[in-house]
Parts: sequence; structure tokens; C-alpha cells
Amino acid sequence: MIEIAILGLGTVGGGTADLLESHKESIARRVGDEIHIKYILDIRELPESPYYDRIVHDYNLILNDPEVQIVAEVIGGSHPAYEFTCQAFDAGKHVVTSNKEVVATFGDELLARAAKNGVRYLFEASVGGGVPIIKPLQTDLAANDILEISGIMNGTTNYILTRMFGAGISFAEALGEAKAKGYAEADPTADVDGIDACRKIAILHAISSGQLIEPARIHTEGISAIRSEDVRAARSFGAEIKLLGRTVSCENKDTFIMVAPFLIDEGCPLAHVHDVFNGILVRGSAVGDVMFYGRGAGALPTASAVCSDILSLAKGASALPLLTFARTSEGPTDFGFFSCRRYLALKNTDENAVRVIFGANTSVTPDEESDELWVMTEEMTENAFLQSVSRLESSGASLLSHIRVY
Amino acid sequence: MIEIAILGLGTVGGGTADLLESHKESIARRVGDEIHIKYILDIRELPESPYYDRIVHDYNLILNDPEVQIVAEVIGGSHPAYEFTCQAFDAGKHVVTSNKEVVATFGDELLARAAKNGVRYLFEASVGGGVPIIKPLQTDLAANDILEISGIMNGTTNYILTRMFGAGISFAEALGEAKAKGYAEADPTADVDGIDACRKIAILHAISSGQLIEPARIHTEGISAIRSEDVRAARSFGAEIKLLGRTVSCENKDTFIMVAPFLIDEGCPLAHVHDVFNGILVRGSAVGDVMFYGRGAGALPTASAVCSDILSLAKGASALPLLTFARTSEGPTDFGFFSCRRYLALKNTDENAVRVIFGANTSVTPDEESDELWVMTEEMTENAFLQSVSRLESSGASLLSHIRVY
Repeated sequence: MIEIAILGLGTVGGGTADLLESHKESIARRVGDEIHIKYILDIRELPESPYYDRIVHDYNLILNDPEVQIVAEVIGGSHPAYEFTCQAFDAGKHVVTSNKEVVATFGDELLARAAKNGVRYLFEASVGGGVPIIKPLQTDLAANDILEISGIMNGTTNYILTRMFGAGISFAEALGEAKAKGYAEADPTADVDGIDACRKIAILHAISSGQLIEPARIHTEGISAIRSEDVRAARSFGAEIKLLGRTVSCENKDTFIMVAPFLIDEGCPLAHVHDVFNGILVRGSAVGDVMFYGRGAGALPTASAVCSDILSLAKGASALPLLTFARTSEGPTDFGFFSCRRYLALKNTDENAVRVIFGANTSVTPDEESDELWVMTEEMTENAFLQSVSRLESSGASLLSHIRVY
Repeated sequence: MIEIAILGLGTVGGGTADLLESHKESIARRVGDEIHIKYILDIRELPESPYYDRIVHDYNLILNDPEVQIVAEVIGGSHPAYEFTCQAFDAGKHVVTSNKEVVATFGDELLARAAKNGVRYLFEASVGGGVPIIKPLQTDLAANDILEISGIMNGTTNYILTRMFGAGISFAEALGEAKAKGYAEADPTADVDGIDACRKIAILHAISSGQLIEPARIHTEGISAIRSEDVRAARSFGAEIKLLGRTVSCENKDTFIMVAPFLIDEGCPLAHVHDVFNGILVRGSAVGDVMFYGRGAGALPTASAVCSDILSLAKGASALPLLTFARTSEGPTDFGFFSCRRYLALKNTDENAVRVIFGANTSVTPDEESDELWVMTEEMTENAFLQSVSRLESSGASLLSHIRVY
């Protein structure tokens, strides 16, 4: 019997408990031992819960019980999740988590603290919900140098963008729908401004490079500025718009890491990741492009990932690859040097002026309905782009939209 | 230093050697030890090979060298690959392979023989080339009951179908192109008749269920009967045609396993897996649908998977999940009970006759160009379908095509 404790009976905690209970027998068969939830920590009383008999309010009960080998921290937020995790390690217990905020902020320190205590810290569920990504990066793609990871890693924004494309509605309308469906929180800032995706790409970058970069140092843009005209423009270019978290290693050793909306050509599999689904494309030096696709959130999908970590520990913790992150104050490369093609929507200018500033091979399409010019530039760096926009604006033109091209 | 031997310096063997050499340092960093190719077994002399100094022709040299811990069997075909694998196990060596024929045919016996000798048999590369699928099924999705696996697992046929859809060319023309590009072999039977996909779905079914079903007992259809008219018809239904290997567990405990072309709605991510890429969709009881996408063949992608197995063994073989297959003479459920919607192309009949036989809700579209009726049935079993066709044909009608709907 392997005794575990769950911290927090919220969406993911409830899903984790339900999954372990409903699949008790098949899991025991696969692990070779029964996994038993001994405690669930929650501040609420929850007398109606099917797990009422196991709910406790004092974390010390769990810490001081030597039978508990694994703690599932599914509280969310930095505190007290961080402190609870440290205390579990110091008490000699493994921790699994879905908490991207804690991993992206304190991952280096927590991995080191786990190692010092001879226990493990696993967080498959922190990125991509139920989509396998962290273990495959560490094992299946271990023979590859990872050249790029580009992922749709936030279901809320992907739902909003899917509705803007599918139903032709505005960002505000789509956000309203997402809230009504429970896909967006009352305060949707962390999702729509890219903060959630930023934490996730920080974690994937740390796994592929060993370097943990503070989320605050990652160039992060959200999707709230995307207009219905941009949706029509993207369509005219045969593309979708998706919010991507990206880490890109260039041949010259430059490394860029960012969260921003991108125009994605319909030929790319990422363009077909819709609704609340996530899709994470990994480019390996040997394997080329692989993509992992599935539900990035929700009680049972996220619980699937939490439980896969619990099962890995139950089958033998010592066997698991030891992961360490170094916190680096160097890198990534200055985002000003990031180069890509760009879609722009402009007003109060003309094709000639655009071509003089952005180059003769720039494609310029006047849109009659909006009286805008839709521009597709050649590859140019952020710095060159900002200079060009400044020249353009000093000629009286207005930049209405700028979305990079994947 | 971990010494390995590669059996066969063909496409995959060459890719494996190249990958281990070119990534020597980064792999050593990840494994914590250097992986060194001590021998490469080949019947040819290969004086021009960069690995000439390590090429041997006598397998006993490898078997009798206690330094060799891991053997990569990348010969292909059943014999002598099967015998070489047995001998390696008996000599106390782990074996990794890309050989789906051997795994699908002898997997149960070989896994048992490996276990008896205290060594492991790993075959990530046998399905999906470089696409991670076997390890994720065993670890990342371990908390799920696997309800369905449906995969585009043969790059050759997917290239042919992509060209039939993209360029409007016939099966024969597309096959010719595939041969010219090196995507199809001179004798393309194993690919176009679904034999290759059949072996792969047999392996995935064995991993998800523990039951190895002989490929000969799996209902297998290829793609050579697909006509240009079917491509146009699929388009008119908003669908693509893809060759799928499928294993489906129904709520009533029926299990179906098959290889056949399917119409796939454009809303499904499998519909956007093009060219030589593979895409494998797994439906888990908790996680819902996840898809694994990438290059299903080729020297380096397949080598990526072979090497991931080598690296897993190098990091600690005892840690790896122990897999066993039981060979079963029971199941799958009689294919006659498999139920789905079906697309039919018919001649010498009319809408009324079709609706009388297939039901009032059957959709019937006359195609002027071909003078055919394109029919979309409701869900019906194979048995019911065959009965209906027999009634239809006895009324003088001709069935030109029948493709199931995913």
C-alpha cells in the first residue's frame, strides 16, 4: 500500500482523488501495489464530500505521518504551496504538482531541496494539463538537442481565438462566452495577457536547457489587442492566429524565449489546435518536428498527468531521471534581435510609402471594408521593425496591428 | 563507458550510429556516461563507411563480448532478427529494436525470454518512427484506461493520400511519385495493403491491453481501391481519407481492431496529418483525446527513438517498467459487429432504392460528373452493411466504393 496526501480539494485535487478512486484496481494492477489517499488537506469542512473522512485541516498531521510517501500539491498560487512543498521535502516526502506558478518561480530551489532530501519533485501537470510533454522531453527525445518548442499552452485564449475565427465575433464577445462557459476566470488577466503561457514556456525552456529564466524576463504579449479585422486579414493570408509560448535556439547560439500571438499557416499542425485544446510542437535535432496534442486543462485531464507522476513514483522513485535547473541571470538573447515576418495593419499611408520603408518585396493588400492596408513584411528583427514603424508614424501613418508570423 | 552493438548498417542503423556519434557529448551529459558503439554487424564489407573499423561479420564476437550491454537490432524482417534477439537475451544483453515485424509476431515470447534473462526488450521505434508513443502509453497515460487508439502509422500511404487530395492525381500516379521520392519501396505491398500498419496497431493494442493478437487475425484493408471520385466525394463531405490502424474498446466490453481507410472530418486533428507524417490519437478514460504527431520514418527520426531506448537502458535498466504480452486466441470481437457510418459510391440505382435499403435518414448526393450516387449511411454494423449491399446488388446496382467514417 502506498499512502499519499492531496493538498487542496479544488478542481485538480478533486479530479485526482476521483481518478485514483475510480481506477483503483487498474492502477494497482499496473503499479503492482495499491495507491491509497490517506489525507486530503483543505481549509474548508466539506461535509458533503465523498472524501469527508479523509479531510484534515492541519498540515502537520501529514508531515508527521511517516506512512505518507507522496504529497500531491494541487493548491495553485505561490503561497502556501511553496512553503508546503519545502516542508514535504524536509519531511522526506516526494511532491507532485500541477502548480506552474510555483515551478516557474521556485523550480530551481525546489528541485535542489528535493535532491538534498533524497526525494523527487515531479510536475508533468504544470504544462499542457493532460498532454504528455515533460516526461517525453526528458526521455523520448533525450537523444535530441531541442532546437525549438512552440506551444499553444493556454486553453482560455485558444478558445477565445477559435471563436473569433469561427463565429466572427470580437475579442470582448468571445471572452464573455469563455467566462459563461467556465473557461475563463472572473479576472482573466493571467490567461489573456499571456502570464499563464509565460510560466509554462519558462518551465519547458528550463527542462530543455537546464536554465530557469524568471518569467518577468520573458517577452510576453497577450491577445486582447487582436481585432476582428486581424482575423479577416489572417484568413486572407491562409492563416490562423494562436497565442504561442516559444523558445528558439538559433544556429548562432542565440536563444529567444517569448509569449505572443502568431499568424500560423494552415499547413502547420498547430493551426488546427482549436477550442480549449493545447498543442506543443517540439523540434529536435534528430526527430524533426513532433507535436503533442490534448486537453490542457480540466479536472480529469490534469488529474491524468498528476496521477502519472504519482504512478511513476509508486513504481520506483530512484529510477526517475534526476532533473536540476540552474537559475541564470544571463540570456535569453536580447529580444530586439529576434527575426521573423510580420503582419501589420496600417492606416493613413499608401503602398509606396510602405514599400519605401519596409522594402520592395513587402506585400501590401488594401482592405476595402476597413480602409486599412494589410502588410506582410519580409523577415526583420524587432529592432529594425521598431525603427521602421517610427519612420512610418512620423510620416503620419497609424499602426493598428502587428502580429508576428510563425 | 557503455558499450553497444548495432546489428545492420542500413537506413536506421546508419542513422543510429550517426546520431550517437554526432551527439556524443550532449548524450554523455544527459546519461552521465559515454555511450560507445563497439561493433556494427553487417554482411557487407563497407570499406567506405566511417564506421569501417567497427564493422564485424560474425555475431559471436558481439555475443561473447561481456562489455557489450546493449544490442540495437535494426536489421528488419523476421529472420535472422528474431534469432539474433534471442541469442542476445541468452547472452545477458538488452535489445532495442525498430523491427515491428519481429515485435508484432514474436513480442510475447521475446519479452518473456528477456525477463527470464534479467534483461529488457524495448521497441519505441517500432511504431511511429520518431514519434513518442510507446513510453507515453506506458507512463504518461498510465492512470488511464485506454478506450481507443487510432493512428496514421504508415508514411507511404499517407503521402499517397495527401497527393491524391492535394494534386487530384490517381492512386497509381501518387504511388509512382512516392516510389520516385524513395517513400515507397519497389514492392509497395506491405505499405499500400495495410500490412505495415497492421503490425503497428497489433503492437499498440498489445501495450494497451497486454494481449498480443496475431496480425493475421486483424481485419486489414489497404488504400489501392481508393478512386479519384472518392477523393472528390470526401471533399464534398468536408473530410479527408486516411489509412488508420484502430483498436477500440466499447462500453459493452467489445474490442475491435482493424486497419482500413477512413473518412475523417476536418474538425479532427488526424485530418491534418499530411505527407509522410504520422499522427496517433489515444483516447484515455481520464485525459480524453491526446495526439502524438511527427515523422514516422526516416533515418534520423527513427534513430531518435532507437537512441531514446538506448539512453533509457543506459540510465538504469532496472528502473524501466516491465512489460509482458499474453498471446491470446480469444478476441477481438467479431468484426461483423463493428458499427460506424459509411460512405458509399453507387451506380445503377436511385435515391429511393438506396433509402429503402439503408434507411430514410441516409444522405444521398448525385454526382453529375461521374454519374454516381454518393451515399452517407447512418451507423450500421459490418454485418448489416453486407446484407444491405447484397440486397442492393440483387436489384442491379453496383457498389463502386465503401469507406468507413471515423
